Amino acid sequence: MNRRSYCDDEHLKNESQQIPALKEVHLLSTQAVDLAVQLSPALKTKPHVVDFGTVFTDHMLTVEWSVTEGWQAPFIRPFTNLSLHPACSSLHYGIQLFEGFKVYRGDDSRLRLFRPMLNMSRMADSAKRACLPAFDQTELLECIRRLVEIDQDWVPQSDSASLYIRPTFISTEPSLGVKRPGRALLYVILCQAGSYFNSEADAISLWADPKYTRAWKGGTGDCKMGGNYGCSLFAQYEADDYGCQQVLWLYGQDHQITEAGTMNIFLHWINQDGEEELATPPLDGIILPGITRRSILELTRKWGEFKVTERYLTMSQLCCAIKQQRVKEMFGSGTACMICPIGHIVYLGENLHIPCRDKQSVTSRLTKELTDIQYGRTPSDWTFMV
Amino acid sequence: MNRRSYCDDEHLKNESQQIPALKEVHLLSTQAVDLAVQLSPALKTKPHVVDFGTVFTDHMLTVEWSVTEGWQAPFIRPFTNLSLHPACSSLHYGIQLFEGFKVYRGDDSRLRLFRPMLNMSRMADSAKRACLPAFDQTELLECIRRLVEIDQDWVPQSDSASLYIRPTFISTEPSLGVKRPGRALLYVILCQAGSYFNSEADAISLWADPKYTRAWKGGTGDCKMGGNYGCSLFAQYEADDYGCQQVLWLYGQDHQITEAGTMNIFLHWINQDGEEELATPPLDGIILPGITRRSILELTRKWGEFKVTERYLTMSQLCCAIKQQRVKEMFGSGTACMICPIGHIVYLGENLHIPCRDKQSVTSRLTKELTDIQYGRTPSDWTFMV
Repeated sequence: MNRRSYCDDEHLKNESQQIPALKEVHLLSTQAVDLAVQLSPALKTKPHVVDFGTVFTDHMLTVEWSVTEGWQAPFIRPFTNLSLHPACSSLHYGIQLFEGFKVYRGDDSRLRLFRPMLNMSRMADSAKRACLPAFDQTELLECIRRLVEIDQDWVPQSDSASLYIRPTFISTEPSLGVKRPGRALLYVILCQAGSYFNSEADAISLWADPKYTRAWKGGTGDCKMGGNYGCSLFAQYEADDYGCQQVLWLYGQDHQITEAGTMNIFLHWINQDGEEELATPPLDGIILPGITRRSILELTRKWGEFKVTERYLTMSQLCCAIKQQRVKEMFGSGTACMICPIGHIVYLGENLHIPCRDKQSVTSRLTKELTDIQYGRTPSDWTFMV
Repeated sequence: MNRRSYCDDEHLKNESQQIPALKEVHLLSTQAVDLAVQLSPALKTKPHVVDFGTVFTDHMLTVEWSVTEGWQAPFIRPFTNLSLHPACSSLHYGIQLFEGFKVYRGDDSRLRLFRPMLNMSRMADSAKRACLPAFDQTELLECIRRLVEIDQDWVPQSDSASLYIRPTFISTEPSLGVKRPGRALLYVILCQAGSYFNSEADAISLWADPKYTRAWKGGTGDCKMGGNYGCSLFAQYEADDYGCQQVLWLYGQDHQITEAGTMNIFLHWINQDGEEELATPPLDGIILPGITRRSILELTRKWGEFKVTERYLTMSQLCCAIKQQRVKEMFGSGTACMICPIGHIVYLGENLHIPCRDKQSVTSRLTKELTDIQYGRTPSDWTFMV
């Protein structure tokens, strides 16, 4: 197998090359059945409880691509460092993207993924925006399934924990011109996932200041490209200074509510027209099309108990609704945190109190319905068996 | 020396850790004089003419940092791949930044840098925005000077070529939470730099479409963080489809002119009030504070021949001025390209022709004045001797 490895000490050749324009579609060139596997000679000890994303399993998946040779055979191998050319454009120009989803161990001990093809499809969208090559989504998912199968002992038997899957796709182009990569590496790592936030508190607090913007029209806010996250850290630490756990990202002159931290956001309220409504900002280019977000919209629309809308929400609408006691609850959604109730928002010097959930709240019901599907207690066509 | 190496095959330890808040200032903990040097046993053959950023010299500088140990001793060593943990947050969240400047070999064979402390200072600003640690700017420059000295034979004896210096600063935090890095690597690589654009044409063509935005208020457009560049590629290739070499980035409803490709932009014209003016957009947060940009402003203000302003310029002002033949010339500026005249702009289906420079043009005069300083033909306090 002619595989140019980015792992360990085999180094990239530093050769000058002409890169022709990409053809429309590049697939993983081999079927997943051709996937090569090299098992780790020594398995790690599995710790009991860990911080999110700090402890990784024994194996990883790597698939290399070059404009001249296309996709190489996928390879499952012992978890190891990457060997990258110091000029590679993932490190200089943020030509990188990722996905995140989880594998859950049900009460029946079987392993389930939750709507993973939606992750594959979003990953393909991010790749297009980042000028990274296309890939066969079904085939990549099959490779991931095989990786999870090999490291299945890492999936905890716990209702509050799971194994997090992190597909990553980076340019390995070893030159400094700002251009479409001629080489790339798609890799997948797995890590233990307990609770995402370090706080014991039930509901989190948000800091909303219009001086920082997460994403903007004509940008990449609807993709999982690295640059969307690095630029958020500075504001995150200013949120800390205000005693808040996450940033509530605003947009535009009218301070539209967009996302919170790395979560989509939902408001359950009585709207201006007196209707009970569950609302979340629309996918207009600056909002990440979250899979938990989509699932919440689909579930609550099926309930048929209140209006469910994708609409713009501004801070002044929220403030007014809080004063008039029209807010029932507010929560963030995402794969890492799932559903996260919001208790406070610090905005223009005011500490806005958001009513807390109770056992009958939408937050609680959604958490139960989603985890019941994820852990296999409710049969669902959203489930993908490993 | 207790150095945790990110190079070659020494791997990062994958240990869980608590990261305390950073103190205000972290300096390189040792003086540059403590810098360790390991020379390459075999030197590469230097090619004659190469594409920008494709061929690197024999050595590189690396300096490691961790929140627990601070800055380690700087190290000049043979050029080699980096060994990075696959979870490191420079690859997932774009926690990365770079700088770019050049070393020129004068007619007297001596090596000169051009205002390098401005690069150090901008790099420190980018680091602050990226939540990467502070460093001693003077000391870093001294380390870079030593690196250039060691690889000095790579600096071409040519008026049109130079050696390009690429300081890079990345997070090496080996975990997936979106948080301030607990580990980082600052490294510097050197590469040959001929002409930045592959075109023989004198003046470049730009594609201006309001549907893409490079940077936005509240974002990181005034820093050299990787995410600013990766998100630009897609538009760049759409520019290609229109036969243009670069994107002219617009902003806002009124289609403000901001930057072109990776360059600042200047318009030399007779303005609406009938005054001869050299204008460039102001540093309002979405414009990179270019060092060539600043030097052009300072030089032309010293000339005292026309108005020199930092002001907003919109496409409608430009279109009107073109029709009324008030545009004298337009050019981009940046370290990689220096000064790059603009010949055409494709905007809303129209191909706008920008008048070309002649020998008396501001473009030509600035090119001469700047290269005369850079190559040591004009003594200047902007010069830093290697």
